[in-house]
Amino acid sequence: MTVLSFAQQIAQATKHNRSLLCIGLDPDMNKFPEAVLREEWPIFTFNRAIIEMTHDLVCAYKPQIAFYHAQRAEDQLEMTIQYLKEHHPHIPVILDAKRGDVGSTAQQYALEAFERYQADAVTVNPYLGLDAMEPFLDYKDKGVIILCHTSNKGAKDIQELHVNDIFLYEKIAQLSASRWNYNQNVGLVIGGTYPEALAKIRAIIGDILVLVPGVGAQGAAIEPIVTHGKTPDGGGLMISASRSILYASHHDDFAKAARNAALLLRDEINQYR
Amino acid sequence: MTVLSFAQQIAQATKHNRSLLCIGLDPDMNKFPEAVLREEWPIFTFNRAIIEMTHDLVCAYKPQIAFYHAQRAEDQLEMTIQYLKEHHPHIPVILDAKRGDVGSTAQQYALEAFERYQADAVTVNPYLGLDAMEPFLDYKDKGVIILCHTSNKGAKDIQELHVNDIFLYEKIAQLSASRWNYNQNVGLVIGGTYPEALAKIRAIIGDILVLVPGVGAQGAAIEPIVTHGKTPDGGGLMISASRSILYASHHDDFAKAARNAALLLRDEINQYR
Repeated sequence: MTVLSFAQQIAQATKHNRSLLCIGLDPDMNKFPEAVLREEWPIFTFNRAIIEMTHDLVCAYKPQIAFYHAQRAEDQLEMTIQYLKEHHPHIPVILDAKRGDVGSTAQQYALEAFERYQADAVTVNPYLGLDAMEPFLDYKDKGVIILCHTSNKGAKDIQELHVNDIFLYEKIAQLSASRWNYNQNVGLVIGGTYPEALAKIRAIIGDILVLVPGVGAQGAAIEPIVTHGKTPDGGGLMISASRSILYASHHDDFAKAARNAALLLRDEINQYR
Repeated sequence: MTVLSFAQQIAQATKHNRSLLCIGLDPDMNKFPEAVLREEWPIFTFNRAIIEMTHDLVCAYKPQIAFYHAQRAEDQLEMTIQYLKEHHPHIPVILDAKRGDVGSTAQQYALEAFERYQADAVTVNPYLGLDAMEPFLDYKDKGVIILCHTSNKGAKDIQELHVNDIFLYEKIAQLSASRWNYNQNVGLVIGGTYPEALAKIRAIIGDILVLVPGVGAQGAAIEPIVTHGKTPDGGGLMISASRSILYASHHDDFAKAARNAALLLRDEINQYR
């Protein structure tokens, strides 16, 4: 059996589901319906319901690990990914963990992401430099999605500092597309709230995959993201939404409401491809 | 009861134990003695033995969370910190997690560090800017230790980029000592492998606490760290070692060997204060 690269997995799921939409699985129990809260595994139950109603509409799922850590629910994250691998193996899983640490510790984080959780890709922070990312990058069949320009307001504090004649985030993009991409498995995080940055970065990085958070609850518009971010074949993007889909309804119809929200968003994205 | 700030807790433990030494609790089961591996909770058993033999020699303990995540041992991290809080409440605990994410997610990481684990301080990554650190900084009695110049070789890739006329790490130090320190609870991580950076940063930050990894297995010399890094009162530093202490012996005498290694290191540090 040929092992697909992460980029190939995404391309396949994008084609199959006609979708650049990535759903973030960020479980906030304060927003769960009562009936879900009464379950033995409320987070897994919630995720499974979302997955069952949306797996034909997405190119990836992206659990945000902080929500599981805060709730002492690492086991339910394992259950969620295990469920995806069993029932929907063609939908890749991005573990959104934004890890960054020196080599011997980064090795432990790589074990966490790729061995314990069996994620297909992980997000990492570039501040510590290449050797801190190598333990992830050395898994050549896994995706390593490097923070470049994040979606938050404070992103400007550091990422838009001038390094010689360019912004720091452009420097990160340059390194990500060259020296750091020795296994052809790098992706970048670029917040949809900064579409002009996305345009500049796409010009630097060729067809490297870009994960775009910031739509939905964070308010980024779809059209400039797709127009500025897509590759010539209308791909190269994983546009991520979480709250606007997961919590489209707080009642027992949450999964159906999530499907409707996901369908609308997928189709809106497809208009501009 | 007056609540002490993190810096006050460290100063108190430093004074009581005449120590700037911080022991990193980075459990690597490949290096545990056989007898420990046979225990129901090997990591907790190992940590407890280390703590019992070293608690009079340190100013802090610093569990590195990646080692617990990789081993599916979050419960044993909880047990370790709980044990410290019950038996040695005057020794502060730094959760080395290097978290960094946008606001709503950072809030979850803050819950993880300060509510779930009850850590006294946490390490964070500044790449996402101030708003990503606010959920931590807003806990004003907790320490927030920001990555400035890390100990690894690749630290230079990004942290030594020139931003106008200074290095990026100096810019981080400036922001950490001013705008980001609105609750007077900021600390910085500066690798002992870069003592010249430590000297420059100390000149910028006044008496802000500095966590210094890189001694022991990573090979940094003690004298320049203390000489360049100390505050006028001979404090302001938490010098962290892990492997060189924890695994001083791989046999049943590991805890005694750890004590000897810790004692030597504490006393070597004190020579230069």
